[in-house]
Amino acid sequence: MTATPTTAVMKATLQAYVDRINAGDAAGVTALFAPGAVIEDPIGSAPRSGDDIAQWFADTVAFATRITPVVPHRGSHGDEALVVFDVEFTPPGGERLRIRSADACRFDAEGRIVSLRAYWGPDDLGPA
Amino acid sequence: MTATPTTAVMKATLQAYVDRINAGDAAGVTALFAPGAVIEDPIGSAPRSGDDIAQWFADTVAFATRITPVVPHRGSHGDEALVVFDVEFTPPGGERLRIRSADACRFDAEGRIVSLRAYWGPDDLGPA
Repeated sequence: MTATPTTAVMKATLQAYVDRINAGDAAGVTALFAPGAVIEDPIGSAPRSGDDIAQWFADTVAFATRITPVVPHRGSHGDEALVVFDVEFTPPGGERLRIRSADACRFDAEGRIVSLRAYWGPDDLGPA
Repeated sequence: MTATPTTAVMKATLQAYVDRINAGDAAGVTALFAPGAVIEDPIGSAPRSGDDIAQWFADTVAFATRITPVVPHRGSHGDEALVVFDVEFTPPGGERLRIRSADACRFDAEGRIVSLRAYWGPDDLGPA
């Protein structure tokens, strides 16, 4: 049984994740993740970890990504919390896109993200 | 590797889950779950399965539960989907309450729910 962070800590980390991406702060976003963290975005795709996470957020920022939370963050009675959002971004050479998504995260005792799994499917993606 | 349902099928099941609870149809809601399904509501509480699921939804309906989805349902590239909602209910002898919640579900090939995990914490619960 490991210690769990409070819901306030988890929600603050989720909000920092949103704010740092919107600020273009790739290093700041990456710093929210624990060593060994795994990102599965979207659920059903190949998980990313290690150096791939820094590259993932470098790309995210380069794509002019803007995240808009659409409801208050949800906590839990464990070590998990959820941010629900619409996200817009412009992939290289493409038009601006919008995804209706939600990131389900698990946290360590220090409030760092150890797992991020994104709920969005093919029909949640469209023009911005 | 098992077959996965389409996002349309998963989202239709999530909407039926909402509609049948709001209609007071406990048996209909229970029928959306596969044999062996597990409900963890909220995340961090003791999981329910088997006959406890039918009892869970009998209680849910008896509490005059009304679910209001607050954003479009989210799918995935796998066998999971998410419904984000506010829910109001009246526990026995108590005042009406509201939870800001989200149910993350996994589905079998027939589109039945095999796992439901609810994101809500102590600070997501308040008076309706």
